[in-house]
Amino acid sequence: MSNWQEYLNQNRERFLNEMLEFFRIPSISSLPENMGDVRKAGEWVMARMKAAGIENVEMLETGDKHPAHPIVYGDWMHAKGAPTVMIYGHFDVQPVDPLNLWDSPPFEPVIKDGKVYARGSNDDKGNMLVPIWSTEAILKTVGKLPVNLKFFFEGQEEIGSPTVTPVVKKNKKKFACDMVVSADGGQWSETQPELGVGLRGLCAMQIDVVGPNRDVHSGMYGGAIMNPIHALVMLISSMRGEDGRIQVEGFYDDVRELSEEERKQIARIPYSEKEFKASLDMNALFGEPGYTTRERIWARPTLEINGIWGGFQGKGTKTVIPSEAHAKITCRLVADQDPKKIAKLIQAHVKKNLPPGCKVTVNVEDSMGQPYLMPADHWGNKAAADVHTAIYGKAPYYARSGGSIPVCALFHNELGAYTVNFGFALPDERQHSPNEFWRLSSFDRGQTAYCMLIERLGKK
Amino acid sequence: MSNWQEYLNQNRERFLNEMLEFFRIPSISSLPENMGDVRKAGEWVMARMKAAGIENVEMLETGDKHPAHPIVYGDWMHAKGAPTVMIYGHFDVQPVDPLNLWDSPPFEPVIKDGKVYARGSNDDKGNMLVPIWSTEAILKTVGKLPVNLKFFFEGQEEIGSPTVTPVVKKNKKKFACDMVVSADGGQWSETQPELGVGLRGLCAMQIDVVGPNRDVHSGMYGGAIMNPIHALVMLISSMRGEDGRIQVEGFYDDVRELSEEERKQIARIPYSEKEFKASLDMNALFGEPGYTTRERIWARPTLEINGIWGGFQGKGTKTVIPSEAHAKITCRLVADQDPKKIAKLIQAHVKKNLPPGCKVTVNVEDSMGQPYLMPADHWGNKAAADVHTAIYGKAPYYARSGGSIPVCALFHNELGAYTVNFGFALPDERQHSPNEFWRLSSFDRGQTAYCMLIERLGKK
Repeated sequence: MSNWQEYLNQNRERFLNEMLEFFRIPSISSLPENMGDVRKAGEWVMARMKAAGIENVEMLETGDKHPAHPIVYGDWMHAKGAPTVMIYGHFDVQPVDPLNLWDSPPFEPVIKDGKVYARGSNDDKGNMLVPIWSTEAILKTVGKLPVNLKFFFEGQEEIGSPTVTPVVKKNKKKFACDMVVSADGGQWSETQPELGVGLRGLCAMQIDVVGPNRDVHSGMYGGAIMNPIHALVMLISSMRGEDGRIQVEGFYDDVRELSEEERKQIARIPYSEKEFKASLDMNALFGEPGYTTRERIWARPTLEINGIWGGFQGKGTKTVIPSEAHAKITCRLVADQDPKKIAKLIQAHVKKNLPPGCKVTVNVEDSMGQPYLMPADHWGNKAAADVHTAIYGKAPYYARSGGSIPVCALFHNELGAYTVNFGFALPDERQHSPNEFWRLSSFDRGQTAYCMLIERLGKK
Repeated sequence: MSNWQEYLNQNRERFLNEMLEFFRIPSISSLPENMGDVRKAGEWVMARMKAAGIENVEMLETGDKHPAHPIVYGDWMHAKGAPTVMIYGHFDVQPVDPLNLWDSPPFEPVIKDGKVYARGSNDDKGNMLVPIWSTEAILKTVGKLPVNLKFFFEGQEEIGSPTVTPVVKKNKKKFACDMVVSADGGQWSETQPELGVGLRGLCAMQIDVVGPNRDVHSGMYGGAIMNPIHALVMLISSMRGEDGRIQVEGFYDDVRELSEEERKQIARIPYSEKEFKASLDMNALFGEPGYTTRERIWARPTLEINGIWGGFQGKGTKTVIPSEAHAKITCRLVADQDPKKIAKLIQAHVKKNLPPGCKVTVNVEDSMGQPYLMPADHWGNKAAADVHTAIYGKAPYYARSGGSIPVCALFHNELGAYTVNFGFALPDERQHSPNEFWRLSSFDRGQTAYCMLIERLGKK
């Protein structure tokens, strides 16, 4: 057994307790009332990095615009001549509503049957601690690292990293690296490794419809004016056909179509539509015609309503035509769609389809994410694949993800560095949902894997 | 000046204070937490009736089914040989949300510029007190009434009177009368009286859509499953055409079409589309093709969404596909549509248009209201028109209302009595909206008018 593995084993309980302490900080980046908690989580990470032997640890402010969650940086740069690798993760988490569906409070972690239940356990607080522990294990046993490491932990991934870009642009030298390794990602299953080569982008907006200047009586006004809820429903309905294809003009113009080779590669990865449906308790799937379910998620763009509200939501009846109705929309985008252009197309669509009598505004969120595609045979992927093969006994799938990690495109555009996805979340761990959890087997395996990856990258 | 007018003048301040006390009871019939307040309002009314000299005052329970708000009854039956007239009103009120749009708390009445601001001031707590005061004035001055009076005050009008029907059916003898006078209604304007001859009916339901068994990540699942918000939007959208005509099969089958004469009668009543739009801050109206705005409100049925909700409603972005989405629908119905049949047609429409993968349930509310049409030349209308002409110096318009008072149809069906609408609300008084108010000029005029009406009915 290597010395670092022994170190990991000996310190397991301590690491576990540290993790639970970290999970207790409610670092929800989307809620203004939790801004202080996101910062607190960042400070916690800084202290932990210093304890691991990471140097030059600092907090970088991301501007004066709300929400301006900080970035935490640190490095270890004493491997002369060796590559420089920057490790990425995030210490912010998703909101927790609906709270009543959680079996235990989201910020009071519970360990049960080899799983730790908490908001952020899977995404990404558990995973982002792994490379810190592994770095500590090597530094405390070997005494030095075979590569130069930089650490880039942010607090706004879950809201699309709206104020990260200018900081990266301003600090290109500080962040300069040959490659990024992202600890925000997962494996195919407990027994099958995976390397992610593609991510979808994101743009988000809110549609606000105003009808009459006040809530009015549905008897006295009903039938004679446009109800803003109906106006909103008509607008949303006009954006997608009944077949699920998006009807916003120009929406698909920049989509890079899948090659026959790519479709074959995707089809090679086993997939059970039956299990997918069963896991959701749905008796049918639904999506863009002409594509498989996996292609729809990995390589096709979407337009989804994440929330809608207006009028009376209580028990019983209120015979009202409300003054306002609202909806939140996000689009998942694929190469080579541009989030800003897509937001403009949707705004133009709304303008063209204005329901009579209503005022409609489309507020585009600052948070945007470019879609991302990297070469499957990149040297970082090769190193990661070697570690996977050693640990799992099989080569990884080269997969994509339907999610968005905006920084992958950002690091590529600004630093010229591709991002290798090397995280240990698993797909059934209720990421973003009530009762999010993370397996302790991943907690252990991840630490070993990161030590091996750091060693392997030193052999480039 | 008649003796009763003098009595009304002398007791004005007392009546005003009583009214404010009554407005302070938050008798919201749709909210379970206010059930006790509705009952309290009923008890308050009973005490006030007794003080007025009304006899046999009692509270009638309306069943063990929630919400079982009571009915308050009383009578004065000593006018042998004269007609029996039953006065109707309701002591329950609409909910008050959104609370932040009220300039003063809805249950803390404020008098300002000759108006009293409070929830229920216009609809119907102010108006329903008027006949009690007028009865007191005649009894305390003349000593007797020229007609037999019965009083029927209910506490569930704003939820469609779901448990009133069985009580009326069971107590036909108690409620037997030649005519009903409803104190739940209004006049055309401060200077123009009105007699209502038609009301729309009502049926109400909630649509609940369930998609995935939990909220899921819009990146990991988006594009591959039916989002329940989209499913709901598609369903609602399918119920109305872009032109506003309802697309539910059979919806218009039983609608009594307007005769040419009726259309002329409606067109005779002055109406400014410009003012209507300006009062709502809307630059366009919208409704069923082929009908004027007034015809749409008075004589055509509607399908309106009163509320919609699902997914994330907070600030910022949550990249989620929610598990559930909900909408509340009410239809305003016209003669001879049947609310139960319409509810079934909508349920059938939903069943026929089920979005793939989602489960949809339509829960029809017990509260239903039959549409109502009465002869314009009914003897009660003639008496009311005489009073109008004496007070306003002009004959009333024979108008309809787009609203619903289910008891009008109920009293006609069960008691064989038509209901004459004789209330003093005015159309700009923000009924059902924040900052509802009632004019003190109506408070005064109403009392005089009711005394005159009681005298005139005695001369039948």
